[in-house]
Amino acid sequence: MTSEDVAQARAAAAALLKRARVAVTRDELESMEIADLGLGDIKRLGLEVIVYENNDRYCAKELVLLPRQICPEHRHPRVNGRNPGKKETFRCRYGEVYLYVAGEPTAKPMARVPRKYRSFLTVWHEIVLRPGDQYTLPPNSLHWFQAGDKGAVISEFSSTSADATDVYSDPRVRRVGS
Amino acid sequence: MTSEDVAQARAAAAALLKRARVAVTRDELESMEIADLGLGDIKRLGLEVIVYENNDRYCAKELVLLPRQICPEHRHPRVNGRNPGKKETFRCRYGEVYLYVAGEPTAKPMARVPRKYRSFLTVWHEIVLRPGDQYTLPPNSLHWFQAGDKGAVISEFSSTSADATDVYSDPRVRRVGS
Repeated sequence: MTSEDVAQARAAAAALLKRARVAVTRDELESMEIADLGLGDIKRLGLEVIVYENNDRYCAKELVLLPRQICPEHRHPRVNGRNPGKKETFRCRYGEVYLYVAGEPTAKPMARVPRKYRSFLTVWHEIVLRPGDQYTLPPNSLHWFQAGDKGAVISEFSSTSADATDVYSDPRVRRVGS
Repeated sequence: MTSEDVAQARAAAAALLKRARVAVTRDELESMEIADLGLGDIKRLGLEVIVYENNDRYCAKELVLLPRQICPEHRHPRVNGRNPGKKETFRCRYGEVYLYVAGEPTAKPMARVPRKYRSFLTVWHEIVLRPGDQYTLPPNSLHWFQAGDKGAVISEFSSTSADATDVYSDPRVRRVGS
């Protein structure tokens, strides 16, 4: 990403948080993670993340998705004997989220995926989250999601987050960050 | 509490969530816990709680405090060998919260406490939380809090919640609920 790409994504995510009436500090906006996952296509693939708290017991983040931005398919595998992998709850605060998990594929899914990203999306059971809706994912379960046309703000509640251990279906993805 | 007290507190909490633009479902509003902690004085002491998720690894709730409502002093003690007690993060979403923890007592605290509740408030180090501010409490640490004049909405992120094991400083308190 160029520094202009990062600045544009940050400004767009900040505007979405404002529209969603989610109060964040200036520091949080400035340190918000702009994650293009190494694919250099932040407007269509990636997400913007504010980590509120991540300690040895729990984690809470605000996830921002720009309009139609996709968080690509991944899972949170077992970390060690005591940690069977991250368990997480997505709660939609603003906009619409199309979440896909294992199960009967949805006949006419709401997601619109550019051709180049389709091969690595293998689960197609759709869950639509609107403001106030939430869904909890068990550890190690494949999932991916896309925001609707207005973008989305999602509160993520979870066990401890260790993003570096995440496994993405698309081998081109490079996860950096917390 | 009379059923009218409960209905009034529920309606007031629902109005605060609406003002704060926190989206909740009708089911969540209807099952929201109205906790007077056995003291029968819900307008001044107690809180309203929506539990979004409480599993074996983490918990997330929305806490609503009516204007100047007080959550009385308590701590979350060790539960067993593996659980040293609940650790929790309070993030203010709306309004103002005056949070008190152990430490140097604040000379001119913002809280206004009716005389009958003062004897059981022993920690007076003040932390003021405004929208976007947050504070993490270690397990087993005494704390109490009061909303400002507009009331408050607080997101609580924590380890697993087991309210029945909480220890309140005021022996009159009876904790029931989840």
